[in-house]
Amino acid sequence: MQKNISEAIRVYRRNKEEYFKDLEEFLQIKTISSDSQYRDEIREGADWIVQQFKSMGASETKILETQKHPVVYGKIPSSKEDALTVLVYGHYDVQPPDPIDLWESPPFIPDTRDGNLYARGASDMKGQFMIALNAIKAIKEIADLPVNFKFLVEGEEEIGSPSIKSFLEINKDLFKSDFVLNLDAGMISKKKPTLVYGLRGLAYFEVEVKGPGQDLHSGLFGGVVFNPIHALCKMIAEMKDENGVIQLPGFYDDVIPLTPEDKEALEKLGMDESFYKSQTNVDKLFGEKGFTPVERVGVRPTLDVNGIYGGYTGEGPKTVIPSIAKAKISMRLVPDQSPENVRNQLERFFEMHAPEQISWKIEMLSSDPACITDPEYFAVRCFSESIEAIWGVEPVHQRGGGSIPIVSYMKKILGLESVLSGFSLPEDNIHSPNEKLDLDVFHKGVETVIHFIYNVSGDCLK
Amino acid sequence: MQKNISEAIRVYRRNKEEYFKDLEEFLQIKTISSDSQYRDEIREGADWIVQQFKSMGASETKILETQKHPVVYGKIPSSKEDALTVLVYGHYDVQPPDPIDLWESPPFIPDTRDGNLYARGASDMKGQFMIALNAIKAIKEIADLPVNFKFLVEGEEEIGSPSIKSFLEINKDLFKSDFVLNLDAGMISKKKPTLVYGLRGLAYFEVEVKGPGQDLHSGLFGGVVFNPIHALCKMIAEMKDENGVIQLPGFYDDVIPLTPEDKEALEKLGMDESFYKSQTNVDKLFGEKGFTPVERVGVRPTLDVNGIYGGYTGEGPKTVIPSIAKAKISMRLVPDQSPENVRNQLERFFEMHAPEQISWKIEMLSSDPACITDPEYFAVRCFSESIEAIWGVEPVHQRGGGSIPIVSYMKKILGLESVLSGFSLPEDNIHSPNEKLDLDVFHKGVETVIHFIYNVSGDCLK
Repeated sequence: MQKNISEAIRVYRRNKEEYFKDLEEFLQIKTISSDSQYRDEIREGADWIVQQFKSMGASETKILETQKHPVVYGKIPSSKEDALTVLVYGHYDVQPPDPIDLWESPPFIPDTRDGNLYARGASDMKGQFMIALNAIKAIKEIADLPVNFKFLVEGEEEIGSPSIKSFLEINKDLFKSDFVLNLDAGMISKKKPTLVYGLRGLAYFEVEVKGPGQDLHSGLFGGVVFNPIHALCKMIAEMKDENGVIQLPGFYDDVIPLTPEDKEALEKLGMDESFYKSQTNVDKLFGEKGFTPVERVGVRPTLDVNGIYGGYTGEGPKTVIPSIAKAKISMRLVPDQSPENVRNQLERFFEMHAPEQISWKIEMLSSDPACITDPEYFAVRCFSESIEAIWGVEPVHQRGGGSIPIVSYMKKILGLESVLSGFSLPEDNIHSPNEKLDLDVFHKGVETVIHFIYNVSGDCLK
Repeated sequence: MQKNISEAIRVYRRNKEEYFKDLEEFLQIKTISSDSQYRDEIREGADWIVQQFKSMGASETKILETQKHPVVYGKIPSSKEDALTVLVYGHYDVQPPDPIDLWESPPFIPDTRDGNLYARGASDMKGQFMIALNAIKAIKEIADLPVNFKFLVEGEEEIGSPSIKSFLEINKDLFKSDFVLNLDAGMISKKKPTLVYGLRGLAYFEVEVKGPGQDLHSGLFGGVVFNPIHALCKMIAEMKDENGVIQLPGFYDDVIPLTPEDKEALEKLGMDESFYKSQTNVDKLFGEKGFTPVERVGVRPTLDVNGIYGGYTGEGPKTVIPSIAKAKISMRLVPDQSPENVRNQLERFFEMHAPEQISWKIEMLSSDPACITDPEYFAVRCFSESIEAIWGVEPVHQRGGGSIPIVSYMKKILGLESVLSGFSLPEDNIHSPNEKLDLDVFHKGVETVIHFIYNVSGDCLK
């Protein structure tokens, strides 16, 4: 077994430049899921994955329609009898590249410089997904696969996976497997490979405030109407108090309090004030009083305004009182908060705080509850061993701040545990301009997965 | 004299369809002054006016450069000795047409329907400017002009006339005249022709709030930084209290209190709550407590957010914490507030109210003080008589809510009083989508100016 691992890693090191071209090709497809004008590119991305699977010797692969963007299914079998089946999860969609003018190289033309590959999706998660494929490619060059692989690659992760729940319910049998390998998480720093055992959920809303029936001239009508931007600002300002405590009625009622063990585990991560200051480039942090930064990011719920717009936003002055102002507001949730409850709390909050002179409405754009996985699950232990073997350090076990809805659905609908890890870095600028992939970490990630594939197929079960 | 007036009005009625074509042509030029990509169209607009002046028998006309957009000068003389010289003021620039998708017909393709002409600038103020030209054209068809005309047509009114002050100082002699005719104001309703004797000033700012050094993922960093949108909302929300009172320190210190006579004059305008509700299409008005709507719009200072933007504003969700958020904020000023003092007050307010975790900066985009004209000035009395002759009612004397910086400069730099009136209506949607010009009112406006030209040249001086 050890011999196979070394041999496959050698093959990978020899072929990695060749494999890398596939990733560069994949990154050029503008698979932006949030904007309907990229529908053709989404389709192109799905087709591209089908071709990859075929070139890797897939016995089955197909594009499955959903209500929005398609899911790519694939199967690459082992000839070994009784081999485990690993379901590799991935998403081929990416965040919009805005604001585009802050990119140093075009977001959809991959550019390698200083040991990093820059492109939208380089890290989240086309690069992470290719780590799994590269590991499989390397092993297949020398021998039969020790496990069967199935793949579920969705196109809606960046918009909160609206179709995936009903899709999984309908296609349950197709994805029958032993467990899920999901590399859509990340490392807490370049020297600290990470296994995630908990994830925050998400409730994402668009709020529209309407004031006058039409845009007005501020000289002729300034002084008689409630400006909807002002109303929206007031409603947003009052959502948090000066201690960063969220003011939605009942917001914290379902939050499971931190245990001393939780606190200790989080402290061990070594993600202190100075870590977050350097990652975010601020002089002063801000968040819920009474909790450390890593607690606030990982295990406490938060609320952010992700976008706001209203009135004139072009160059120079325009003396308008707009009719409408809008904001995108989202909450990161922790167990046992439910997105539906949060929706009700937001509505109650606006009923209490919106000025009576304006009208408002909210739309929920995305929702999924938080989840916690089992760190003692055998495949998780195997991945942990593989990390130690390749990186020379024990992995950090983390409860993460982001949301990956698929993890809870895999458990609830398919009954599958997830190995949740990944090799992106906090400084990789995911969802921001100049997203990148650290190539040293990437290659080491592939070697980790090669090790894991052999490890989980037998050794660590004993 | 009376004969000449009737004759010229008859000529106008016969030729008005012909004259109208010029306005339609003028409205097709996209003279948007706030956006530098329309520089060529601005130039085209200036050239077009030069051609108009030439076709009207101008003895002089030229395009005069400023630091930004050019001013068009013209002179159409009377052969009468000792004739008065009237300086007609106009601006050929228009507001941006955004939001474009709310227009029922394209903003730069004039469309006449139901007795209105729809186009950006139809009312503000290409249409108003053409009222003066049409009156002159009609008179010239039957006889010599009873007064000399000079013209000053600027291209920066909609951006606060940044060049006009220094321009007038340099070109003082060229514009030597007896008084100014400025039709850039409006009527308070279709049956109430209006003369304006006071105008509010303007101080217009852009505020930029900076939080983290780059856009962040709200899952990975939500809970550790002060979101700049939230900070900006808080800063804006606190600018007014629940009674609509502006909270900038010292903001009301220089405001001249209303006299009982002011209050009475304003009440006479008949612009009550229901008037403003129907004009703005709201159920409930809002403004500074203790003042009536017409007082708040006309003679009290106000503050409005004219635009706000930050983060993701596209379709669907994007879980970003932006690095930067911006707002456009402007104050309408009354005597004796100064824009520079207001700038200092805004800075002091932000020093007190901005969260310490973010940084902010402000830029002043436009500024001009309020002004009050003399209602007993002879040319104002003449215009009042002409209104009564044509409309059958006395004009309303109003202190207006909008700002026309040129009026105060005409007085201070050239020593000229202004006759400030106009024939646009509150429902003409100036600065909004579907700007229009009421054609009945427009033609009656031309007849009023024909009457005024004869009236001011002799009769009413007696």
